[in-house]
Amino acid sequence: MSEPLYDVIAIGNAIVDVMAPCEDAEIETLGLAKGGMTLVDTARAQELYDAMGPAREISGGSAANTLAGLAALGGRCAFIGQVADDQLGEVFAHDIRAGGIAYDTVVRADEPPTARCLIFVTPDGQRTMNTFLGASQFLPAEALDESQIAAAGILYLEGYLWDPEEPRKAMRRAIAAARNAGRKVAFTLSDAFVISRHGDDFRALIEDGQIDILFANEHELAALTGVEDFQTGIEQLAAKVSTVVVTRSENGAHAISNGEHAHVPAESIAKVVDTTGAGDLFAAGFLFGYARNKPLATCLTLGAICAAEVISHYGARPEADLKELVAARLG
Amino acid sequence: MSEPLYDVIAIGNAIVDVMAPCEDAEIETLGLAKGGMTLVDTARAQELYDAMGPAREISGGSAANTLAGLAALGGRCAFIGQVADDQLGEVFAHDIRAGGIAYDTVVRADEPPTARCLIFVTPDGQRTMNTFLGASQFLPAEALDESQIAAAGILYLEGYLWDPEEPRKAMRRAIAAARNAGRKVAFTLSDAFVISRHGDDFRALIEDGQIDILFANEHELAALTGVEDFQTGIEQLAAKVSTVVVTRSENGAHAISNGEHAHVPAESIAKVVDTTGAGDLFAAGFLFGYARNKPLATCLTLGAICAAEVISHYGARPEADLKELVAARLG
Repeated sequence: MSEPLYDVIAIGNAIVDVMAPCEDAEIETLGLAKGGMTLVDTARAQELYDAMGPAREISGGSAANTLAGLAALGGRCAFIGQVADDQLGEVFAHDIRAGGIAYDTVVRADEPPTARCLIFVTPDGQRTMNTFLGASQFLPAEALDESQIAAAGILYLEGYLWDPEEPRKAMRRAIAAARNAGRKVAFTLSDAFVISRHGDDFRALIEDGQIDILFANEHELAALTGVEDFQTGIEQLAAKVSTVVVTRSENGAHAISNGEHAHVPAESIAKVVDTTGAGDLFAAGFLFGYARNKPLATCLTLGAICAAEVISHYGARPEADLKELVAARLG
Repeated sequence: MSEPLYDVIAIGNAIVDVMAPCEDAEIETLGLAKGGMTLVDTARAQELYDAMGPAREISGGSAANTLAGLAALGGRCAFIGQVADDQLGEVFAHDIRAGGIAYDTVVRADEPPTARCLIFVTPDGQRTMNTFLGASQFLPAEALDESQIAAAGILYLEGYLWDPEEPRKAMRRAIAAARNAGRKVAFTLSDAFVISRHGDDFRALIEDGQIDILFANEHELAALTGVEDFQTGIEQLAAKVSTVVVTRSENGAHAISNGEHAHVPAESIAKVVDTTGAGDLFAAGFLFGYARNKPLATCLTLGAICAAEVISHYGARPEADLKELVAARLG
């Protein structure tokens, strides 16, 4: 097995976040599920956009955010995801490439437009996401370059993209390509509602031993395992997955890797502005440490540092120099 | 003369800002004039975008930013500016309407696309702007509804839009409509380079008594008057314009209105993140006070409060609740 060309290659939604602050009352009036991710069609996306205050557009997408963090830390990354031939597609492609991430998925000429996620951010910093999948749902399995996947130490997949059929096929093919090449497969469960739709698939992948590294928050852990007790749930999962990483918001994060347990507290932060991307950036820090063979607790701390940065401002991509932050914190 | 329906109606660039942090060395390498605004064509815009780091998109445009601030303070506003039928045009229109501003300019179907401004923000918070005028330069004089202009207490015009021919004609027609209706005309000089191109026009408008309220920073004041000494320059101008307002960055702001002099210091601020929109939001605060017949020094303080808010974060539109900030500061 040759030395990997990339630390991580990821498949995910190629999406631009459209984000605006809002009051809790608005979340209720609009009938939104606070804190979750809901898929919306064109009409509902328009209705929600009309109801939204002045917004800003920042490239997003769970796995793409993770790569942006990884690349900012010095990781070598590649991304696979589908945009349309439009201005938001240009924005997404520019931002990911400008972050130093290889991105070669061919632009899709037809309708629908590039995906966008309408994000309402309440005063407590919580984000409520409404995703119009657009072009993203048409990522064809043929868009994969299997030799590129084989050239990455870790294949990283986002659960969000399990909803649409074509990318699901593409991800299954990518898992096979990575495993055939002797690479690791990492998966993030993304959202408790996604698990309610696709939990059987996820559990089957786990039982089959297809997943080496699994990311979840405590709610997703409970949804996947059906176990209320945190410790029981994570241990049950760790019996089937080599490395399990579970975040617990302000209560820090836990990991179990090949029998080793680790826990770190959350990093302290002046003010939570917007939690969009917290989990994505946690995964970035963890995977960076993992790819560099750092101790398990260090991997968690790296995750916590990156998550703390991204929740201190609007948007799910890092603003501060993550390398500097890590150097200041860990020396 | 009837009671105005709007406090302010403005004509300006309908533009989306594309902003990214950068180092001072990059400004030099790219051959940019730090702190200024340069007009760029399609090829140069592409070249600069390719060189730019991961960016975020936030609606901008000088006069539109001013209205966003005014509306946030409780002012009644209308905007006139040209977008194309594309995604950035939708973003611009959404953001301005979501701010509670009337905006009825008909979308332009043809090429070029909606205007964008590529803004490089250096670590000192200075912004260097590169404007692709796109659809904005094709605002036709026919787009004006003269009865709408007559219905606003103040017509506000941005100097930036004096460059392209069609909007210049539109603005001249708007000035006539406002004056015929007995309304005030406010003008911002926008940029020292714009004055080097159109100073003769601006001086002629002033000599003709077409301008009631003039906004400038100290560099623009010097470029317009040809006078180095600040006090001499502002007094010279005040002899010809009823109300002259000049900002001096961290040294506060001065105004002379019908012989009355006022000066306020800059508001204190923890950290200057991005000065984009500082002048625009200063004008917002000042005009809000002016429209409400506040004392001259209060108008300046309102300007300083709004400017301080906008330079404390990325983007030229207010993020914090300006009404609350003003209430906390002025009671």
